[in-house]
Amino acid sequence: MSHNSFGHLFRVTTFGESHGVALGCVVDGCPPGLPLEAEEIQAELDRRKPGQSRFTTQRREADQVRILSGVFADDRTGGRQLTTGTPIALMIENTDQRSKDYSEIRDSYRPGHADYTYDAKYGFRDYRGGGRSSARETAARVAAGAIARKVLPQGVAIRAALVQMGPHAIDRANWDWDETGRNPFFCPDAAAAARYETYLDAIRRDGSSVGAVIEVVAEGVPPGLGAPVYGKLDADLAAAMMSINAVKGVEIGDGFAAAALRGEDNADEMRASNDGRPVFLANHAGGILGGISSGQPVICRFAVKPTSSILTPRRSVDRDNRDVDVVTKGRHDPCVGIRAVPVAEAMMACVLADHYLRHRGQVGARA
Amino acid sequence: MSHNSFGHLFRVTTFGESHGVALGCVVDGCPPGLPLEAEEIQAELDRRKPGQSRFTTQRREADQVRILSGVFADDRTGGRQLTTGTPIALMIENTDQRSKDYSEIRDSYRPGHADYTYDAKYGFRDYRGGGRSSARETAARVAAGAIARKVLPQGVAIRAALVQMGPHAIDRANWDWDETGRNPFFCPDAAAAARYETYLDAIRRDGSSVGAVIEVVAEGVPPGLGAPVYGKLDADLAAAMMSINAVKGVEIGDGFAAAALRGEDNADEMRASNDGRPVFLANHAGGILGGISSGQPVICRFAVKPTSSILTPRRSVDRDNRDVDVVTKGRHDPCVGIRAVPVAEAMMACVLADHYLRHRGQVGARA
Amino acid sequence: MSHNSFGHLFRVTTFGESHGVALGCVVDGCPPGLPLEAEEIQAELDRRKPGQSRFTTQRREADQVRILSGVFADDRTGGRQLTTGTPIALMIENTDQRSKDYSEIRDSYRPGHADYTYDAKYGFRDYRGGGRSSARETAARVAAGAIARKVLPQGVAIRAALVQMGPHAIDRANWDWDETGRNPFFCPDAAAAARYETYLDAIRRDGSSVGAVIEVVAEGVPPGLGAPVYGKLDADLAAAMMSINAVKGVEIGDGFAAAALRGEDNADEMRASNDGRPVFLANHAGGILGGISSGQPVICRFAVKPTSSILTPRRSVDRDNRDVDVVTKGRHDPCVGIRAVPVAEAMMACVLADHYLRHRGQVGARA
Amino acid sequence: MSHNSFGHLFRVTTFGESHGVALGCVVDGCPPGLPLEAEEIQAELDRRKPGQSRFTTQRREADQVRILSGVFADDRTGGRQLTTGTPIALMIENTDQRSKDYSEIRDSYRPGHADYTYDAKYGFRDYRGGGRSSARETAARVAAGAIARKVLPQGVAIRAALVQMGPHAIDRANWDWDETGRNPFFCPDAAAAARYETYLDAIRRDGSSVGAVIEVVAEGVPPGLGAPVYGKLDADLAAAMMSINAVKGVEIGDGFAAAALRGEDNADEMRASNDGRPVFLANHAGGILGGISSGQPVICRFAVKPTSSILTPRRSVDRDNRDVDVVTKGRHDPCVGIRAVPVAEAMMACVLADHYLRHRGQVGARA
Repeated sequence: MSHNSFGHLFRVTTFGESHGVALGCVVDGCPPGLPLEAEEIQAELDRRKPGQSRFTTQRREADQVRILSGVFADDRTGGRQLTTGTPIALMIENTDQRSKDYSEIRDSYRPGHADYTYDAKYGFRDYRGGGRSSARETAARVAAGAIARKVLPQGVAIRAALVQMGPHAIDRANWDWDETGRNPFFCPDAAAAARYETYLDAIRRDGSSVGAVIEVVAEGVPPGLGAPVYGKLDADLAAAMMSINAVKGVEIGDGFAAAALRGEDNADEMRASNDGRPVFLANHAGGILGGISSGQPVICRFAVKPTSSILTPRRSVDRDNRDVDVVTKGRHDPCVGIRAVPVAEAMMACVLADHYLRHRGQVGARA
Repeated sequence: MSHNSFGHLFRVTTFGESHGVALGCVVDGCPPGLPLEAEEIQAELDRRKPGQSRFTTQRREADQVRILSGVFADDRTGGRQLTTGTPIALMIENTDQRSKDYSEIRDSYRPGHADYTYDAKYGFRDYRGGGRSSARETAARVAAGAIARKVLPQGVAIRAALVQMGPHAIDRANWDWDETGRNPFFCPDAAAAARYETYLDAIRRDGSSVGAVIEVVAEGVPPGLGAPVYGKLDADLAAAMMSINAVKGVEIGDGFAAAALRGEDNADEMRASNDGRPVFLANHAGGILGGISSGQPVICRFAVKPTSSILTPRRSVDRDNRDVDVVTKGRHDPCVGIRAVPVAEAMMACVLADHYLRHRGQVGARA
Repeated sequence: MSHNSFGHLFRVTTFGESHGVALGCVVDGCPPGLPLEAEEIQAELDRRKPGQSRFTTQRREADQVRILSGVFADDRTGGRQLTTGTPIALMIENTDQRSKDYSEIRDSYRPGHADYTYDAKYGFRDYRGGGRSSARETAARVAAGAIARKVLPQGVAIRAALVQMGPHAIDRANWDWDETGRNPFFCPDAAAAARYETYLDAIRRDGSSVGAVIEVVAEGVPPGLGAPVYGKLDADLAAAMMSINAVKGVEIGDGFAAAALRGEDNADEMRASNDGRPVFLANHAGGILGGISSGQPVICRFAVKPTSSILTPRRSVDRDNRDVDVVTKGRHDPCVGIRAVPVAEAMMACVLADHYLRHRGQVGARA
Repeated sequence: MSHNSFGHLFRVTTFGESHGVALGCVVDGCPPGLPLEAEEIQAELDRRKPGQSRFTTQRREADQVRILSGVFADDRTGGRQLTTGTPIALMIENTDQRSKDYSEIRDSYRPGHADYTYDAKYGFRDYRGGGRSSARETAARVAAGAIARKVLPQGVAIRAALVQMGPHAIDRANWDWDETGRNPFFCPDAAAAARYETYLDAIRRDGSSVGAVIEVVAEGVPPGLGAPVYGKLDADLAAAMMSINAVKGVEIGDGFAAAALRGEDNADEMRASNDGRPVFLANHAGGILGGISSGQPVICRFAVKPTSSILTPRRSVDRDNRDVDVVTKGRHDPCVGIRAVPVAEAMMACVLADHYLRHRGQVGARA
C-alpha cells in the first residue's frame, strides 16, 4: 500500500505538514556506493525554495536538509560519503511557523483547497497552512529527486520549463534551455518571460492568481524502461505528476493534440542508423511506445490550476454548515506553477530511477 | 510490485496476449457476499466486443467469460451465486486466432506500435496481433470493472462518452446520456454522432485512422475517497487511464484549461445545504480536491491517439537495422477511442472500488 | 496488497478452490527468454499429485496444467517456447469434483479446520472440500516453483525431505538425498522410511493422522541475497513456509536449538579460501546472516500439524451455535506432511528467485 | 516493495543505523482521531532501553523519541493531540556515538554477524556498531508498536515473556504475567528468573552469551483477522518475528510439538456458548485456523540465537581474504533475547493492527 509512498525498487515515502515540526522522506532501495552529500540535495532544494523572487511566496524557510541515515564515509574508500543501500532518511525542519491567527481557515472551507475534503475524510484536519495538503510537501520530492538523478545511468539529462502562464504560451521556436536559469519563471523563451513578468505583476497586485503548464524532458533515457501493462512508464509518470499539488492534467508527447491527428501524421517513422538503434524522424509519442521508453526524449507536460488562495472574497460554508465568505490572507504564490518546475524534474527522476532498477531486476544488464 | 496489477484492496491482475490461449484476470480483495453471475460480466464485455459495427475491427471474438473461482452458490443463502472473498479468476479464451502470415511484422517494427520497444526491452516478442500490447487486454479490465461496480455503494453511477473524434468535438449543450446507447460511437450528442459517422467512413475508406477524447463521469461518489499524497484519487485515475492502450493525456475537471484561468474563476464556491453537505456552485475541480473526492461528480477525460495500423506505407527499420517500408494489413479499428469507452468506465469503477475499501479500512464507516 | 500474492519482482498470485472450476496462478515479473514447456511444470506437479501411494489421499485428480499466456515459440529463435517477460498464467482444471453430500460440513465446524474462521470472517464459505483453505491450492505453488527454478542462476539446487513423522525422526547420519526418490515419504533415511511405513499404516487403519517436519535445503545460493530489514531472506522464507496449509512452525539453521547454545558454539567460524570467498567451518546460521545469504546452504525446516480430518468423533458446534459431534469422512491424507515436500521446494525456489531479481535490481550484476 | 517496510494498511517503514545521526520510522495509514503523545511512545521505548540492568548492554542511549508529523492538537477537539490520518514520522537521535576505534571490525568479519554478508551484498558497509544490522533498529519497531496498540479495538491485550534462557525453560505452572514486571528478564516464573540470574551472571563473567525463547500472547483478538492464503495472520507473524535481529525460529500455538501429535490430540474441540461464539476446549492452534484468527488467544513463540559478540577469540577472515582471529570488544547484551521481549509485543501489535484495518476494508464492520 502506498498512501504516501511511490516507486517500487526506488521507493520514496514522504511525511510532514506545512506547520509541523519537520517534513522529509525515506528513500528505500537506492543502490549502494553512490557518492551523496547533503550539499547536493540542498542545491536542488534551493531551486524550489520560496522567497527567491517577488513572484513566489514570501514565507522564509531555510529548507535546510539533513541526511539522517543510509550514507557512510568509509576511510577505506577514500572518505567520500557513499550510499550504503539502506534507507536514506532526509529531514527538513520547519522554521518559519509564524504563530498567526488561523481562526478563519480553522472553521471555514477555502474554495479550491482541500479543507472540506480533509474534514470529510478524516473528521478534522491540521488547518495550519494547509497541513499535509500544502505544497510544502513537495520539498521532500525534490530532495528525493536529487538522489534519483544519481541512480540513473550516465547521460540522462532531466530538465523542466514553464511553457505557459495563464493564457500566455511560449513560442517554441525560441526555446533555449539556458534561458530557464536566467528568469524567475524557469521559462525557456526570453520574450515570453518578459510577458510573464508584466502579466504576473498585475495578477499579484490584484491579489489574484493564475495557472500554468510545465514541460519536463528527459534526454538520454535508454530504450526498454517501463513495464507493461499497469507499470507502464507513462502510467507511472501520469500518477507522479498528477500527485503534485494543483495539477489537473498530464500528457505525454503530443498528448491531447494527438486526438485530432490522423494515423499517418502521428506515427513516428524510423530509419536505420549506424549505432544499431533506429533513428526516429519525429517524436509525437513523447519517447514512450506501449508503455516502454523508445530511446527518444521522454516528454511530459502537466497543467497546474491557479493558486486557490486569493484576496477576492469567495462564497463558502463553515464546519457547521453555515454560509460564509472567505478571503485567504497570508503569504502565497501568485502562480504555483513556477515552483512546480523543480518538482517536475524530481518526479521524472524518481520514476525513471525506479524503472531503471525494475528493468535491471527483470531483464538484467540489457538497458 | 505491480507490472500487471493495479489497485490495492480491490486488486486486479491481468494476463494474456492477443493470439495466445486465453486472456483474463484475477480480482483479489473483493468483499464477500456480493451476487455475481457470469452473465453480468458478459453484458459489460459485449459493449466492448469487436465487430459490432463497421467502425470497429472485424475480428470475430466471442469474448465469452468464465468465472473460475471466488464465487459459490450456497443453498443456505437461497442458491444465489455470491462472491466468497477469495480471488475471482476470470478467463476469456481466444477463438479467432487466424493463422495469418505474420512474417512482415515479425521482422519489422510498425511505427507507432510497441514492436520496437518490446524487442528493446525483452530481446524478442510475441508478434502475433501485437501480443501483450494488443488492445485485446482491455477485455480483462472490462470484466474486472463489472465486479468493481458491485463493490461501490448504492447510488454511484459511472458512465463514459466519446466527446471528440479527430477534430470534431461535441456540443456540450446537446449532452444526452441516453444518446450514447443509440449510436455506434457512445457519443452523447446526436448531431455530433452524425458528423462522426460521415467523417469516420472517409477515414476508413482511406485506410487511415483518427484519435479521440473520452470523458468518464462518476456520480454519487461519497466525499472522502482518495488518500493523500501519492494515493490521491486523481493520481490513481491518471495512472489507470494512461495505462489504457494509445492514451496520451489525462485530465480531471477543467484539466489543461485550468492553466489559463485566474483564481477567482477556478475556485468552486460553496453554499450551505439542508443535508449537511455543502452545495458546490461549480465543478472546475472535477470532484477532487487535494486528491480526495468532494461529493461532486468525478470527471476524467483522456485522449487516445489514432490507431497506428494504417494502410499508408510508413518508413521504418527491421530487426536487423535495415530500412523498410511498413503497411499494416489485418483487421483494425479506424478509431480505437470508440471501444475505449467501456474500458474507461471499468477503470473508473476499479479505482473507486479500491479507494472505497481503502477508506473503509483506514477510517471505518465514515464514507 | 497481497492477500493471495507473494514475492515482489517474481510475483505469484494464486486462485481457486478445492471443488471450483479450476485453480491456478499468475506469475508476473519472470525474466524473458527462458525455455518453458508445460511438461516441465507437469513433472513437478506429478510429484505432489494425490493418489500416488496408499499414504496420500485417494482423490483422483489429473492435475493437468495448461499455460495460458506469457510464452511464445518464435521461429526466429529456433521454435523453442520461451517466456516473454509478460504474465504467465497457469490453469489446472478440477476434474474429480465428486458430487458428494456435504450437508454435514456445510453446517458444522470441523475442529482444526478453517470452517469456523472462514464463516467468522466472510459470513459464509464454500464448504466443498474446504474451499480455498484446501491443500489443493498448493498445486499452484508447485507450478509456480517450476518456473522459479529456471530463474535462478546455474548451480542452485533445491531439495526437500521429510525428516520427522509423528514422533519418529530420521538419523541424520543416514542422510542420502537419492533415498528421497525411493520411498513414498520423501525420506532421506532408508531405515526411518521403513519405520514411517509401519507407523503410518497403523495411523491410517485407526482413521487417525499425524504431523511431520520437512527440511528444505538450497545449495549453490550466491552470497548477497536478501534485503534488510523487513525483506530479510529468512523473514520471507518464514512467511512463505508458514503460509502452507497446516504449518505451525518454521526455523532456519539450528532454529529453536540455537536458544540453548552459547555464543562460542553458535558462531560459524571462517577461514580464507582460494576462490576469494570465506570457507565456513559450520552452518548453525542455515546460510543466512543479518537476513542475507552467506553462500552456505540455505536450510529451512517447518512443522506440519496432523491432518484435522479424522474418523474419531470430535465435539464441535454448528452454524447455529448448537453442540454437535463431527466425524470427517471423505478422502484424506493421513500425513499431509508428505505432499508438503514438493511444496516446500517450490516455495524456496520462488523466494530465492524473487530475491535474486531484487538483488540484481538494486545492486546490479554483483550476485 | 518493502525492503524496510512492513504491513499494508498500517504500514511501518524504518530507517537508521547504530551510529548514524538518528533512527526512526514512518507509520502510514494510521486511522485519524486517536490520541497520541510522545510520552506514550516513550514509555514503551523505555522498556527496551539499554542499560537498565547489568544484563543488558551498558551503552547509554536516552532513546528520546520526537513526533515529527501526523498529529495535531486541535483546540476545537479540546486541545488533545490526535493522529490526523497522515504519516506519523518518529525520530530518535543517536547520542552515545562513542568515537571508538573500529579498525578491527572495519576490516574483519565477526563470525555470526552480518559483516561478511553486507559486504558481499553491497560491496562495503557502515561498520560502526553493526550499522543497519544493529539491534538498535528495533527501537523504531517498539515506537511503531506503541501506535499500533491504539489502533486495535478495546480489549486486545498484548504481552510477551522470556520463557527460556539458554537451556533453562520456565515451569508453565508458575506463569504469572505480573512477575514479568518484577525481574530484569521479563520472565513470568519467579523461580526461573532466579535461575536465569545466576546463569546469566556466569555467562557474562565468561564474556560469553546465550540464546532465549520469547512467547508473545494477544488476548481479545476478534475472530476473522487474517487473509488467506499469503496474507495469513500466522504467515505475517512469522515474517514479523523472523525479521527481528538474531531470531532463528518462529512457531504458532503448539508449533514444532504439533508434528509429534495425532489428529485426535491436536484438534481444538468446541462447545456452544451463550454469546454466540464457540468456546474452544483447547488452543493447540494458537488462535489461528486457516490463517484467520479464531477468537482464542493468538500465541507466537520465537527463538533468539546467542549474541555473536563474545570475548572468546573466533577464527575468521578479513576483507582481503586473509585468516584472522576476532574478539568482539565493546558493550553488548549477554542475552539479546531479554530486550527482544518488548520488540515482540510491538511486532504483534503492528501485525494485528494491519490485519484489523485490512479486514475492515474488505469486509466492513464485521470484526
